[in-house]
Amino acid sequence: MTRTLRVLLPLASLLLLAAARSPQAGPGSGKDRAEVVLSRPGAVAYAIAIHGGAGVISKRLPEAEKREYVRSLEAALRLGQEALAAGGSSLDAVEKVVRFLEDDPKFNAGKGAVYTHDGTHEMDAAIMRGRDLACGAVAGVTTVKNPISLARLVMERTSHVLLVGPGAERFADAMKVPREPNAYFDTPKRYKEWQEALEKERRKAAGSGETHGTVGAVALDRHGDLAAATSTGGTTGKRYGRVGDSPIVGAGTYADNRTCAISATGAGEEFIRHAVAHDISALMEYGGLTLQQAADRVIHGKLKPGDGGVIGVARDGSIALVFNSEGMFRGAADAGGRFEVKIWE
Amino acid sequence: MTRTLRVLLPLASLLLLAAARSPQAGPGSGKDRAEVVLSRPGAVAYAIAIHGGAGVISKRLPEAEKREYVRSLEAALRLGQEALAAGGSSLDAVEKVVRFLEDDPKFNAGKGAVYTHDGTHEMDAAIMRGRDLACGAVAGVTTVKNPISLARLVMERTSHVLLVGPGAERFADAMKVPREPNAYFDTPKRYKEWQEALEKERRKAAGSGETHGTVGAVALDRHGDLAAATSTGGTTGKRYGRVGDSPIVGAGTYADNRTCAISATGAGEEFIRHAVAHDISALMEYGGLTLQQAADRVIHGKLKPGDGGVIGVARDGSIALVFNSEGMFRGAADAGGRFEVKIWE
Repeated sequence: MTRTLRVLLPLASLLLLAAARSPQAGPGSGKDRAEVVLSRPGAVAYAIAIHGGAGVISKRLPEAEKREYVRSLEAALRLGQEALAAGGSSLDAVEKVVRFLEDDPKFNAGKGAVYTHDGTHEMDAAIMRGRDLACGAVAGVTTVKNPISLARLVMERTSHVLLVGPGAERFADAMKVPREPNAYFDTPKRYKEWQEALEKERRKAAGSGETHGTVGAVALDRHGDLAAATSTGGTTGKRYGRVGDSPIVGAGTYADNRTCAISATGAGEEFIRHAVAHDISALMEYGGLTLQQAADRVIHGKLKPGDGGVIGVARDGSIALVFNSEGMFRGAADAGGRFEVKIWE
Repeated sequence: MTRTLRVLLPLASLLLLAAARSPQAGPGSGKDRAEVVLSRPGAVAYAIAIHGGAGVISKRLPEAEKREYVRSLEAALRLGQEALAAGGSSLDAVEKVVRFLEDDPKFNAGKGAVYTHDGTHEMDAAIMRGRDLACGAVAGVTTVKNPISLARLVMERTSHVLLVGPGAERFADAMKVPREPNAYFDTPKRYKEWQEALEKERRKAAGSGETHGTVGAVALDRHGDLAAATSTGGTTGKRYGRVGDSPIVGAGTYADNRTCAISATGAGEEFIRHAVAHDISALMEYGGLTLQQAADRVIHGKLKPGDGGVIGVARDGSIALVFNSEGMFRGAADAGGRFEVKIWE
């Protein structure tokens, strides 16, 4: 390195760092933002965000049904918040939240997973810890009651990251993880959606306007560790062992203590080709953007309207909830007293 | 933005840009580098790089065996070079090269794929086009003669990116893709490695020193389009439907016309957690690094020694061949007359 560069490079880095830290600098300025910086000097912050899927969510959703969704999201958010407030790890918190949403038949993950083309259920999940980039994922499992917990076992008990299909079920047996017959995942609502999808296929109608019900959670704990978790039944009528972005580390799920934790929901293939979760992390790490700016850039600048959204928590405890679809079931809570659940706007 | 920042930010950017463009600045300085810039004004360049795996490759490899490897790599490289020289697309070139290496029993992909713990073969592959980020991948296929061509069909004939397991085989049937009984993939060399792996497991010995024989190709064509392709049999003795980085877009395979095309080989789980292929692209896009600098930063700065390596071609036609293992079977050719195949150093 030349002498000049040896002097100028650290200077440049310092300037960029200062710019990145300035709350008003950089792209995305002026946009509406949900960002709250929690890391007051001396305060030990925590933060959590959750989602229950993004897509076309009709604003004419019956009031009773809407209340049901809000109640479930609030209960899930409170579970995670309480775990974090008590000093629990972000990894435990996001697993706990996602398990809760998997067991809730309203969401497309675990009980309530959508139907494949053939009328079965194939589920995917991933979990990641930002401290050491440890991660685990499963794809195409058909009998595992809580795929997110199997993903965590892949992370903690194997040297692998991703197990798929019947092999993942054999691993579940080896780990004595609860399994259910595939019919356990049947629900009337998803059955109706499947029938409609088959009918559309017969009429060769476009399959637009789909609601993606993937669930996910991201959190920062009092120890400064980030974690992310995502679980899904995929898309109604999917064929040929299709796997989306949820179990793909870097696409639907990512966590790195140097930047942020991300969980995505939406048109999985778009999230894979844009490596959405890792791209947001990279924009923070190399581009000096805040989480909100990075998420805005990727969701509004790279994806197409309607593709979906992400939830994220940054290392400083700021939260971003960004989507380009009509709605996203979501919630956010932090040590500063924030506790909110929303569907639209 | 404050007035000070408004002045300092562009200055910082300029300094960083200068540093990135200085051939001696940044990480990896002083290291041996294989970078050649081909894009002379007016010249329509092409470039291609290939690999046949990285890992512990003994320098006491018998001379005859070494010549065999070199001959195969040269033949594969020539296939790709000729396709590109004739004006063919980078996508066709990388598929053709990888098919050739899949059919060669010396490499761990297609014919010659390693054995799973249970004595079968499970293969993964991915292909990606940099022009529009179109991509396709398959994982855990057991009877498809050329997984890379099935991955291309996923890209071109479905709205999906990744198909796994028996579903992917059903898709192969629907596409009338050649299938073979699983025993077609048996080879004496891989059988011996499997037996040794089982013996090691019985003695609970560490499974170190593995050669990863994954194959891959990346190319820039005369139209300015980048493409990447990777195909593998995974790791010897793998269990429970383990899938590595090769079919994971963003980890083992990535291509974006704005930056580069990357194919990786090595300890797949590390490449997934670091999102290696996308990380190199992001370092170029957001960090202003050259391909060589970005690949050096990730392979030597983020991964552990012995993890493996990557091949890459940048949008300007420069080539990077970077690994932190003892060796990597590799080759590079371009419109400027470069044509070389190497194993060590």
